[in-house]
Amino acid sequence: MAHDSRQKDGVYKSQSNLKGDIKMAKKSFPLSRVYGLIEPGPVVLVTTARGDRLNIMTMSWHTMLEFTPPLIGCVISNRNYSFGMLKAARECVINIPTAEIAEKVVGCGNTSGANVDKFEKFSLTPRPAGKVKAPLIEECYANLECRVADTKMVNKYCMFVFEVIKAWIDPAVKNPRTIHHLGFGSFMVAGDRFRLKSKMM
Amino acid sequence: MAHDSRQKDGVYKSQSNLKGDIKMAKKSFPLSRVYGLIEPGPVVLVTTARGDRLNIMTMSWHTMLEFTPPLIGCVISNRNYSFGMLKAARECVINIPTAEIAEKVVGCGNTSGANVDKFEKFSLTPRPAGKVKAPLIEECYANLECRVADTKMVNKYCMFVFEVIKAWIDPAVKNPRTIHHLGFGSFMVAGDRFRLKSKMM
Repeated sequence: MAHDSRQKDGVYKSQSNLKGDIKMAKKSFPLSRVYGLIEPGPVVLVTTARGDRLNIMTMSWHTMLEFTPPLIGCVISNRNYSFGMLKAARECVINIPTAEIAEKVVGCGNTSGANVDKFEKFSLTPRPAGKVKAPLIEECYANLECRVADTKMVNKYCMFVFEVIKAWIDPAVKNPRTIHHLGFGSFMVAGDRFRLKSKMM
Repeated sequence: MAHDSRQKDGVYKSQSNLKGDIKMAKKSFPLSRVYGLIEPGPVVLVTTARGDRLNIMTMSWHTMLEFTPPLIGCVISNRNYSFGMLKAARECVINIPTAEIAEKVVGCGNTSGANVDKFEKFSLTPRPAGKVKAPLIEECYANLECRVADTKMVNKYCMFVFEVIKAWIDPAVKNPRTIHHLGFGSFMVAGDRFRLKSKMM
């Protein structure tokens, strides 16, 4: 399997093999500001690792639950291959893509990790995370390393509560054109920005 | 109180006083398609009614939990005036605004229903809903009438699960410029749309 060669290359297995790409391209991002990445409702790619298996799942049913530590509620159907991986590994990375890789994002949503190595198929690059075994996707402008914090809503709603324990951002991406799902193959891209004095955080 | 005059006018109290505006301007919207309104992550206005009191709360911590019947998980802090109203009334309307009324939306977020009649202050129009006592906001392009379906996550996460029991949409609004919160007074507006063949619903 392709996973094995990656394991042997150590591209994601060992921090010591990190080629510095993440650290050069991406900066650590304050946990207290993570909500601003998730709250606007982007489609995200959830990566998981279990033994030598890596997977990617496309998801947009998520909400912030708490500012700090950042807690994110994510609905991951038990029909998804990632569901079992998450229950076992209890870790993941929430990767936030932009419109530049929209076809890969939708491709990940149209395939299953049960029979496809999505990193291979969609030419996405797994990079070692700092605190979890699940990989960061290099092509995403932000990456949130998460641990499962609460599984009480999994049985009824397939909702995992993740705590973000480490966040990365590409400082070169100023106005990320995040993707937002409208259903039935329709999407919209983040548009104009504006500021209004807000007492909201 | 301003609420009283509205009650006497019957603008929202009685279906029989409905002036037909909602029915003329807005159409019933299939419940099975509600997820496409919520999933892209818009800032929404939650309206509640309790006795003669109406309130509006600005919110963007929400996620779909189920397609049909549509279930939406919404985080409503117990520091908000709407929290108590919701616990008592167990009904609300999720109103989806567009950028045209962004200042009113942020205004609603910066004030409290404890001491402000937000319909009055922000010149928003309450209209009678079909199945709940909470009012529809006429100026919003879509309105989702909801009943509280589950309060088990309220203590820990302030998350209410709402079931949408009736939905309205303004068919004249083709590409709604929904508002998405980025934190610290920054917002983005829904931008370009695109289609990609998706097996996702």
